Amino acid sequence: MSTAEMRTVDWADGVVRLIDQTRLPHELVIKEYRDYRAVAEAIRVMEVRGAPAIGAAAALGVALAALEGAALPPDEFRAHLNEAARVLAGTRPTAVNLFWGIDRVVAVADPWREGSAAGAANRAVAEAVAILAEDVAVNQAMGRFGAALINDGDTVLTHCNAGALATVAFGTALGVIRAAVAQGKRVRVFADETRPRLQGMKLTAWELARDGIDVTLIADNMAPSLMRRGLIQCAVVGADRVAANGDVVNKIGTYGVALACRAHGLPFYVAAPLSTVDLTMSSGDQVPIEERAGEEMTHIDGIRVSPAGVPVLNPAFDVTPAELVTGLITEVGVLRAPYGPALAEAVARQSRREEQQA
Amino acid sequence: MSTAEMRTVDWADGVVRLIDQTRLPHELVIKEYRDYRAVAEAIRVMEVRGAPAIGAAAALGVALAALEGAALPPDEFRAHLNEAARVLAGTRPTAVNLFWGIDRVVAVADPWREGSAAGAANRAVAEAVAILAEDVAVNQAMGRFGAALINDGDTVLTHCNAGALATVAFGTALGVIRAAVAQGKRVRVFADETRPRLQGMKLTAWELARDGIDVTLIADNMAPSLMRRGLIQCAVVGADRVAANGDVVNKIGTYGVALACRAHGLPFYVAAPLSTVDLTMSSGDQVPIEERAGEEMTHIDGIRVSPAGVPVLNPAFDVTPAELVTGLITEVGVLRAPYGPALAEAVARQSRREEQQA
Repeated sequence: MSTAEMRTVDWADGVVRLIDQTRLPHELVIKEYRDYRAVAEAIRVMEVRGAPAIGAAAALGVALAALEGAALPPDEFRAHLNEAARVLAGTRPTAVNLFWGIDRVVAVADPWREGSAAGAANRAVAEAVAILAEDVAVNQAMGRFGAALINDGDTVLTHCNAGALATVAFGTALGVIRAAVAQGKRVRVFADETRPRLQGMKLTAWELARDGIDVTLIADNMAPSLMRRGLIQCAVVGADRVAANGDVVNKIGTYGVALACRAHGLPFYVAAPLSTVDLTMSSGDQVPIEERAGEEMTHIDGIRVSPAGVPVLNPAFDVTPAELVTGLITEVGVLRAPYGPALAEAVARQSRREEQQA
Repeated sequence: MSTAEMRTVDWADGVVRLIDQTRLPHELVIKEYRDYRAVAEAIRVMEVRGAPAIGAAAALGVALAALEGAALPPDEFRAHLNEAARVLAGTRPTAVNLFWGIDRVVAVADPWREGSAAGAANRAVAEAVAILAEDVAVNQAMGRFGAALINDGDTVLTHCNAGALATVAFGTALGVIRAAVAQGKRVRVFADETRPRLQGMKLTAWELARDGIDVTLIADNMAPSLMRRGLIQCAVVGADRVAANGDVVNKIGTYGVALACRAHGLPFYVAAPLSTVDLTMSSGDQVPIEERAGEEMTHIDGIRVSPAGVPVLNPAFDVTPAELVTGLITEVGVLRAPYGPALAEAVARQSRREEQQA
């Protein structure tokens, strides 16, 4: 099983299956969840992480809750579902896909329209499963559009993990790289290790090496000098939320990568499915930035590395202003500045298409 | 004993005493060395590190070698000293203070001029001890000049450790901060943890907290977004070598700090004693950059964190072009661009002063 075929988030017979990403790269453990509360906890402790993956996992969490309440009277079913949505939405604040995934499933699970809670639960499961299938198709579409931006022989910098492990499968930023490699282009990847949780080291390097893609690990602070030495041709990263003006909220350190690209005249691309776009946020500075526990900084793999008593900061995300973004790779094409109208049009077109399909 | 009073590199009765920096922050261990070969090994494995500290330690290493050879005939003494100089110089390639410290002691240990190897050995010890005393005086002078650049209420970013632990005592960049605090200014420090060896976390945070200075640890990748949020007013770092044109070779990641300062209009200062200046290098790109073992990246405190088999890069230093440097804080004042003439004049003036004293 290559990583590209592996599913990070999956559903089978009323059970949610998630790769436990806190065990990688040392062990590949797939955990099963039958209770939405356990799915919420898995999102909170980052057993599953990555904006599209937590959107899909949360959607499946709502489906589990719907099955749990399938024998309830309609209004109790809705109250139960709303409570599940509240618990799942309270796990992490920054990635908008979480709320998007929850809302999509809650919206279709209408026991009055479906005739019963059981009918609504079936609709909920079908919608969550559809989100999983769409995620893979969206990533493959992004890969096709994005691969055209990568030249044969390029070394691509990526930050954090926007790979198969951040999605249902294939990946967003790493999907672009996979697609370029599949086209026969020789591509080398520099993976920022991504402190504090080391997702670049533990997840990106692991999944690319597993697929035989040429990947080299670097510390986050090395990229600027490698660019100065001419060793990097472009950067491709993912996004946790894209604001209406094109500002990109992504893993802490992304902004520094974008600044370094600008200083060296290198393109900085963001692979972001439209589910990541939040038109209600006029700029990135409106997006809530999660501050995570200091232990992520002071301890590595459970061992204290820092001096006791010294305070730490641990913002999990930063904001990259739209003017540093060379292109937004989406499933409907590569958007270019000015991002405000480009994003509004792409989202409106997708809404019309969904309405026609409904 | 405050860190400011503590001596990182010391000499007593024919014994070199070094704080073992690989044991910090968990244990403060002072090791004793009676053989120059052991001093060389301590430099190589970074029990002692920081450009001024390794310059001082290497000078003491030559002094140990001179005492060891004090009973030899003059020409055998010189051959012995040259061999010691070769071994000590072969430990690390980038910091020029290493070669400077060795050369100063070798130059004075002349058994013909001193009348005997024993006499030359005494001169060697006196010179090495003088280097230690000068280092403290130089750092205090840099502190006085540099403190004027720090405003009351500033938050100062620093990278790696250019503190008491990188020098004999007091520090270069952290000496500037100590001097500002001693003047009654309220100064907050953000310390980059500085992957891969985490000197910012393990050394800078430890020594500043020990002195009661307000220090907060951040991951290297956080500084750009903290600057964008207005939380940092300037950066002060050390240097391993300053080229004739003002390019600064310093710990990997320094260049990214300088780029981020430039992008946010913040001053980027380098605290560099003139012993760090190498006029034989016309630019920073001529300076050899040490590539250290991959284990520094893949293992933390002896435990593997990265996936096996994935290659890593581990350049220990990078080059910050002079045009990003707001000021070079030296013991003779704060030098400003154009750095070429400023450095040439400062070095020439110092040479004339030394000749007058000799």
